[in-house]
Amino acid sequence: MEDDLAVEQEPSGGRRGRGERGGAAARRAARTGGGPGTQLTYVKRQIPLYEVLNEEGIALIEANADTILEEVGIEFRDDAEALAMWKDAGADVKGERVHFPKGLPRSLLKTAPSVFTQHARNPERSVQIGGDATVFAPVYGPPFVRDLDGNRRYATIEDFRNFVKLAYMAPSIHHSGGTVCEPVDVPVNKRHLDMVLAHMTLSDKPFMGSVTAPERAEDTVAMAKILFGDEFVDQNTVIINLINANSPMVFDETMLGAAKVYARNNQATIITPFILAGAMSPVTVAGTLTQVLAEVLAGAAFTQLVRPGAPVLFGTFASSISMQSGAPTFGTPEPSLVSYGAAQLARRLGLPFRTGGSLCASKVPDAQAAYESANTLNSTLLAGTNFVLHSAGWLEGGLASCYEKFMMDVDQLGMAQKFAAGVDLSENGQAMDAIREVGPGSHYLGCSHTQANFQTAFYRSSIADNNSFEQWQAEGEKTAPQRANDLARRWLETYEAPYLDPGIADGLRDFVEKKKESMPDAFT
Amino acid sequence: MEDDLAVEQEPSGGRRGRGERGGAAARRAARTGGGPGTQLTYVKRQIPLYEVLNEEGIALIEANADTILEEVGIEFRDDAEALAMWKDAGADVKGERVHFPKGLPRSLLKTAPSVFTQHARNPERSVQIGGDATVFAPVYGPPFVRDLDGNRRYATIEDFRNFVKLAYMAPSIHHSGGTVCEPVDVPVNKRHLDMVLAHMTLSDKPFMGSVTAPERAEDTVAMAKILFGDEFVDQNTVIINLINANSPMVFDETMLGAAKVYARNNQATIITPFILAGAMSPVTVAGTLTQVLAEVLAGAAFTQLVRPGAPVLFGTFASSISMQSGAPTFGTPEPSLVSYGAAQLARRLGLPFRTGGSLCASKVPDAQAAYESANTLNSTLLAGTNFVLHSAGWLEGGLASCYEKFMMDVDQLGMAQKFAAGVDLSENGQAMDAIREVGPGSHYLGCSHTQANFQTAFYRSSIADNNSFEQWQAEGEKTAPQRANDLARRWLETYEAPYLDPGIADGLRDFVEKKKESMPDAFT
Repeated sequence: MEDDLAVEQEPSGGRRGRGERGGAAARRAARTGGGPGTQLTYVKRQIPLYEVLNEEGIALIEANADTILEEVGIEFRDDAEALAMWKDAGADVKGERVHFPKGLPRSLLKTAPSVFTQHARNPERSVQIGGDATVFAPVYGPPFVRDLDGNRRYATIEDFRNFVKLAYMAPSIHHSGGTVCEPVDVPVNKRHLDMVLAHMTLSDKPFMGSVTAPERAEDTVAMAKILFGDEFVDQNTVIINLINANSPMVFDETMLGAAKVYARNNQATIITPFILAGAMSPVTVAGTLTQVLAEVLAGAAFTQLVRPGAPVLFGTFASSISMQSGAPTFGTPEPSLVSYGAAQLARRLGLPFRTGGSLCASKVPDAQAAYESANTLNSTLLAGTNFVLHSAGWLEGGLASCYEKFMMDVDQLGMAQKFAAGVDLSENGQAMDAIREVGPGSHYLGCSHTQANFQTAFYRSSIADNNSFEQWQAEGEKTAPQRANDLARRWLETYEAPYLDPGIADGLRDFVEKKKESMPDAFT
Repeated sequence: MEDDLAVEQEPSGGRRGRGERGGAAARRAARTGGGPGTQLTYVKRQIPLYEVLNEEGIALIEANADTILEEVGIEFRDDAEALAMWKDAGADVKGERVHFPKGLPRSLLKTAPSVFTQHARNPERSVQIGGDATVFAPVYGPPFVRDLDGNRRYATIEDFRNFVKLAYMAPSIHHSGGTVCEPVDVPVNKRHLDMVLAHMTLSDKPFMGSVTAPERAEDTVAMAKILFGDEFVDQNTVIINLINANSPMVFDETMLGAAKVYARNNQATIITPFILAGAMSPVTVAGTLTQVLAEVLAGAAFTQLVRPGAPVLFGTFASSISMQSGAPTFGTPEPSLVSYGAAQLARRLGLPFRTGGSLCASKVPDAQAAYESANTLNSTLLAGTNFVLHSAGWLEGGLASCYEKFMMDVDQLGMAQKFAAGVDLSENGQAMDAIREVGPGSHYLGCSHTQANFQTAFYRSSIADNNSFEQWQAEGEKTAPQRANDLARRWLETYEAPYLDPGIADGLRDFVEKKKESMPDAFT
């Protein structure tokens, strides 16, 4: 089921069509110290997976999920077409409740690819989804931003464009994402047009489509056809889309509608139970995993009824609620265990897996935000997650996109990518000559092996201050968010849009303009 | 080689000899909300290990370390007795350089236990060192503190006592540690007496001994004999001690002197190459691991020459230097890989393993500190580390002990301990009845399974604010360090010393007083 991949694994600074213009910009950025550095391709994990369930545990949860699917069933609400499709496929449909004969969803999922390519308009930015690849995408969904002047306010389309620009520039972000923030200054029924246009024109990385209504999904596909060509879109995946289950055990009309549009067009869907354990699922890890698996089996199999072979991901969004306040919590042990377990279940199903990111509940980019985000990102990486939403910028349980947090998270993603390269056991990696050369009681600072390797030996943080206390003090006692603030401003000042064929750019703008003119503004 | 263990695995609030007094204090603390909660025993890991080296990689590094030991050798400086012991054991001694015939150190290490108990004066606080146990101990060594009034200043004996008190109260800290900060207001040659006395009287958790001079190690042993009795100390391990290699490939007189005292007295040593890779070891992970293994093999085997069977740990302190400034960096990918790899090498040797903690380079308890600490702690736990120094309070690359950071780290340690319990696959854990009871489209908040489990289902953070933005704002927009500050003050206000037999307490104080009177103050 593997897709044919033509994606480079080596870091690359080039972008299609930029030529000298891009090169000059990169050189200028390097000179001023404001540039973000060389773009990395997606993470190719060369490290082992971490698994928390043994064979017996996995089999138990799989059997329990099958029981839930058969006995309790899943509701497909307000979508007669979906119910009819399930009936035709051999499910037992009672009202809107679908009961699944044992093995039916698994059998349907045999047509889903375990690995596929999401193409970007710049082929060097195309990403592998599945297998040993991990793709980092920005935060998705917040209606608020915490801006560079320290204000927490509603997000605007300007913020949206800024986050697309920052994600484009960030070497360790491989994907432009989707709703990097909700541009609430644009009418609800027209937002998706401006958002998709921003991804297509301000970045050349792969992106996500609109899922808030079937017609908005259709618009996304139509714009993708302008960008990539009709036939290319039908034969290749160029959009990936977030389809949340309405847990527990419900898929609603909106999400089903968008899923059908994308699957019919051979575009990828991420079937994601959005779980705040204790509210939308049982308070236990095993119970949550059982429900997640049941929901994903039903939702992902549905995409194969729509179009066999359409790419689909096993997604899970794992959080627990505070049993005192009911508020969601992040970076705690239980969601990490859920992520590790769900990744194992996804591998058994042969589906690419999405979870995690840099999640936190903190209202500010402080130590709480960082502890929680690091805990989440560590488990996300070691679980072998293939597609990582919310990799950068997430604050306040997803209510705010934060510029400073975005920059700090980007730095952490670079570390994760370096870690994922594993241990170099080559002769150079073994460094026996260095140990022999230096010997007892000396140091390695000037030895020839160090000279030959020092530029790439260690990850260089763009945020961390490793200087002495005295030097840090002399430089103004800046905290990490303050340094991140400086960096975000420098990046936005030096941003240059990637080249796009003017005819295509005009075509996209025309499409958006006409669509906007065709309907009155709506704000609900 | 396993020790006989009589340590309980269940959380326990009781302390020997406290009786009603302890119970009343605990109840009062619970009422006021100022108490730290139920003490946990050491972590009993029920989760898999994470390993970054395959069999071939381990064998390669082992063979390389053997080559270094034979060809390059290790220096044992200014210690004629040590050199004579190595000569007698069959090593090739040239000046102060010891060359080891292949297999000699491994063969000597066969007498070292893979698991042992470090006894605390309160048997419920005794800890297992090795196997599937992880023991968290506080920060070790900083000459500065960042205090609760926001000042960064030299540490005092009052700070030292405060950190001992906080570690005693912290449920997820299993060990009182050693030099929780350097009390620079006490003469250098008398400090160790006040430090050991504080651990013995203000806490009932196990502790570490002085290693700064052989006679100070002797004082520690003498005080332990007052506390535990002569025979008990000779037959059991009651002190664990940090013996750093002077990397690369040197053990010096001071450390060898202390190591000999402790090993002769059957007390535990942690042989730790203190590595800033790029300065004290090669810039590569595999090269660093090779040198670390060679140094530990030489140092740990030496303890078995002193007293076969004396407990000894494979330690490593892993950091990289910034290749721009030479400053140490923490929480970056390379030290994590070193920790994972070193843990594997320790398991192959059959020695308990020490690394990691909550390390960071940041000067303040900000997001940088938290990202770096969380990255370090995650790898520390998943590597299967048995003894974790610097678990809480570490700031500024180890130059400062920070009260706020201490409290935040303690919270993270609690999360690590909960994570280490793994996935509950019991019938209650599977929660099938809950899923059946709730069904599609409802919620789990009030269901009977949630009611039965909500109090213990999720880790409850003592630091994180999970409330809404509005509520957080109404409560003063506090950051995590500010909440940690409040909590540290509350703990210190409610601290009560654990009961200690007055005769023993007097004996300890007499010993310290007489020792202090026996010599003039020295400040260097």
